[in-house]
Amino acid sequence: MEIAVRYRSFEGEVRRVRHASEACGCDMVFGIYLPPQAADGPVPVLYWLSGLTCTDENFMQKAGAQRLAAELGIAIVCPDTSPRGTELPGEHDSYDLGSGAGFYVNATEAPWSAHYRMYDYVTAELPALVEAEFPVTGKPGISGHSMGGHGALVCHLRNPGRYASVSAFAPICHPSECAWGQKAFTAYLGEARENWKDYDAALLIGEANDPVPILVDQGSDDEFLGDQLKPGALEQACIASHYPLELRMQDGYDHSYYFIASFIGDHLRHHARGFGLI
Amino acid sequence: MEIAVRYRSFEGEVRRVRHASEACGCDMVFGIYLPPQAADGPVPVLYWLSGLTCTDENFMQKAGAQRLAAELGIAIVCPDTSPRGTELPGEHDSYDLGSGAGFYVNATEAPWSAHYRMYDYVTAELPALVEAEFPVTGKPGISGHSMGGHGALVCHLRNPGRYASVSAFAPICHPSECAWGQKAFTAYLGEARENWKDYDAALLIGEANDPVPILVDQGSDDEFLGDQLKPGALEQACIASHYPLELRMQDGYDHSYYFIASFIGDHLRHHARGFGLI
Repeated sequence: MEIAVRYRSFEGEVRRVRHASEACGCDMVFGIYLPPQAADGPVPVLYWLSGLTCTDENFMQKAGAQRLAAELGIAIVCPDTSPRGTELPGEHDSYDLGSGAGFYVNATEAPWSAHYRMYDYVTAELPALVEAEFPVTGKPGISGHSMGGHGALVCHLRNPGRYASVSAFAPICHPSECAWGQKAFTAYLGEARENWKDYDAALLIGEANDPVPILVDQGSDDEFLGDQLKPGALEQACIASHYPLELRMQDGYDHSYYFIASFIGDHLRHHARGFGLI
Repeated sequence: MEIAVRYRSFEGEVRRVRHASEACGCDMVFGIYLPPQAADGPVPVLYWLSGLTCTDENFMQKAGAQRLAAELGIAIVCPDTSPRGTELPGEHDSYDLGSGAGFYVNATEAPWSAHYRMYDYVTAELPALVEAEFPVTGKPGISGHSMGGHGALVCHLRNPGRYASVSAFAPICHPSECAWGQKAFTAYLGEARENWKDYDAALLIGEANDPVPILVDQGSDDEFLGDQLKPGALEQACIASHYPLELRMQDGYDHSYYFIASFIGDHLRHHARGFGLI
């Protein structure tokens, strides 16, 4: 593990960390924000999963989360969105498959299965590394945006008891039934749709047995709302299963980090409640 | 004037605006944040001048300023850092001269003098356009970072009575005596150093006759501190002239937007006091 760079931020520190990943079979870089309280002992940690085309840096640079994280005493970890430097055939040809588009699944299909094991990376390998190397407590929160919102929901729903708190911004709620999800799942998981349901939040809700309340914000002017994100499918599944979901439609907001920044404070407070900080 | 894109942000709106610039002889793009209060009538406006390599977007995306600007009721205007699309010889060859590096001067030397008139643009043409087209009041504040901190100080010092409030992050305080400034001023203004002093804050302080208090934050771990920024020269000039300067050395901070984001709240409150809002 190598700390590639450090930035002082709100009396805490943003670090970019490079390490060899066993799950992905390549070097991976993640970002971590340590609030000032981390100097005095372990603090709760929030995992943030980013969307298509993002890296470990977008959230740290654009969400404006550090101010309140420093006030509340929450660490934030931002993994990258795919393996890097693996140079698989076609890996860089489109924005919604391959590099920058790992979809937080364990790929079973060639050529992706050699490296694209982002589910194991974000749920197992990365938390083990973070807990071993940084002053964080053991029951994290998880959130994310778009593809990363899908990832956050799936990570929670498949790991009951693991997360103290869950939220998402404009998540891809039902990837089996949208173009982004179908393209990625076909490539990574194969054409058999029964292998997709382990990575589809709207389908997993029915089996959920850890009813941690989920907060979702969705912009009403998000260009991907109807075709790709389908929050209604998540809402219907939650209603049918009596799963506690707060879905907030935010009038006039789009899919950008300007939207995320506008509501990240509410999400950090949601996670702080999950951590028992407030 | 054309609004190229709009983003809802903290119940206000970020807009990117394209217009034909007479000062620069080309199309220019600027960003403007209108807080929710602008829907009810004119609000004070803060001009933010960015640093080398930046565009109109860096501050809006990375500084995290909109949250408090929305709370205080302050509009923010972010001009670009140079003319664009003019394709002068050598314009794109280095990060510290030409595109992205206008230094907020009116160039007198060929080939730059045909377009590089950023001083007129940010002090006259852009404010006139903004005041005509948006609900803002007439006495703005001005701030900026690095090259843009230099620009903010110079714009204020050369225009007594114009600005309600002034601040800077890690400004180039004495460009006549650093490599960045000497390279840019030689190219834009010629080799005669007597033509440089109109654009050097440390030299202009002695003639200042509008003692608006200046707030400057400077990171102690800024890699450009000693060689390029020289806050000590500004401090000495202010002491000699009894000019009110608050220079804060911020321990461990660097030159990045993580530094700016950490202290932008203090600067917005400084400007709010200048505007009489708080």
